Amino acid sequence: MPNPTAAMIVIGDEILSGRTRDSNMHHLAGQLTSVGIDLKEVRVVGDENGTIIAAVQELSRVYDSVFTSGGIGPTHDDITADCIAAAFNKNIDVREDARAILAEHYAKSATELNTARLRMARIPDDATLIDNPVSAAPGFKLENVYVMAGVPAVFEAMVASVLPTLTGGAPLISATHRIERGEGDIAGPLGELATAYPTLAIGSYPFQKDGKYGAHIVIRGNDQAEIDAAIADLAKVFP
Amino acid sequence: MPNPTAAMIVIGDEILSGRTRDSNMHHLAGQLTSVGIDLKEVRVVGDENGTIIAAVQELSRVYDSVFTSGGIGPTHDDITADCIAAAFNKNIDVREDARAILAEHYAKSATELNTARLRMARIPDDATLIDNPVSAAPGFKLENVYVMAGVPAVFEAMVASVLPTLTGGAPLISATHRIERGEGDIAGPLGELATAYPTLAIGSYPFQKDGKYGAHIVIRGNDQAEIDAAIADLAKVFP
Repeated sequence: MPNPTAAMIVIGDEILSGRTRDSNMHHLAGQLTSVGIDLKEVRVVGDENGTIIAAVQELSRVYDSVFTSGGIGPTHDDITADCIAAAFNKNIDVREDARAILAEHYAKSATELNTARLRMARIPDDATLIDNPVSAAPGFKLENVYVMAGVPAVFEAMVASVLPTLTGGAPLISATHRIERGEGDIAGPLGELATAYPTLAIGSYPFQKDGKYGAHIVIRGNDQAEIDAAIADLAKVFP
Repeated sequence: MPNPTAAMIVIGDEILSGRTRDSNMHHLAGQLTSVGIDLKEVRVVGDENGTIIAAVQELSRVYDSVFTSGGIGPTHDDITADCIAAAFNKNIDVREDARAILAEHYAKSATELNTARLRMARIPDDATLIDNPVSAAPGFKLENVYVMAGVPAVFEAMVASVLPTLTGGAPLISATHRIERGEGDIAGPLGELATAYPTLAIGSYPFQKDGKYGAHIVIRGNDQAEIDAAIADLAKVFP
């Protein structure tokens, strides 16, 4: 059975302008791979209602699950929650369960739960909350979409909250063989190897470092014995 | 007049599996912003013909230009050039101008221009070549799509080759004001500022560092005087 599939939507003008370097994509990719879910596509979009809604609708139809990052804070440019509600035609308002979490959190630091902070309790109807152990304001899941914060520490904590609830396939196993030859010399035999092992994914990643060059050949699949056999075949040609 | 728009397609299973951390998106975003081109969307897709072709066709219709990264090397998983040709219904084969560049490059190092390396001279009809001063194998431009390598050093060199040929709009200017208050305290006045200056993009980026927390407010626009006025208004509320 093929692994479940996923997509990600990274939301924020600051990524597209080059001001901020996204790190959430790389984190989620590694986490999903570790539990046997195949991340198939990532989209980075700006803080624009139409673009966000269209991406959510399209990707949630195509893939088993969708993960979003960014745009759920208290400021005027945080429009993700409203876009998700619109994408699924749901009502959205301050919800009592989310408000209670924020009230308890801010009471501890004697901080006022003002109108702006209350925006973070706006949760679409029928959504379930995602725990945020870092800064309290929850993410949420609606249909097959997991809506999470953009701040990396909070995003990573929310992914950790969600991960145990996901049902993955067979985790992808990989093995790497380092070859100090140009990719142009490796490509021929490598193509033959890919043909001989059609169920394995075989990738070639060139490097140049410390005066040496070559490629790391990464072989991925679900069957350790098959991967070992392919690596052994490769090592016969390129020891 | 609004700035020209652009999209990017990052191609490679290794990004989606979490093996490799992409850096080309952040580089291109900064470069395009510096010349007044608005990067509106980025898609990260795997090494799959159908997905790549669909992304190229859709994004090249919607945006003024499209930049791709990855998949133009000599190995069997390098399928980008063929996908671009298919997306625009063009013939693709080893082209003499590209072959000549490779032949000269490999002659210098007495390296054989074998079948695998010749794959890198496969260029669609009507495409113009993009110079690669790092490792010779050229990128190319077809219609409004710029096809470049995934290896960061080569990608960055190709962007440098292409950038002077692009016609941008007014470069985006930005100013930043640091506020050591929670975003929840900043959000109200910030929303009013955004309403008062509708032509400016005002973003709030929270930080937590060295025991302090707050937000960097970034105001972007094309008019320095307007940005200065907005910053001054903000500083009245949050000195």
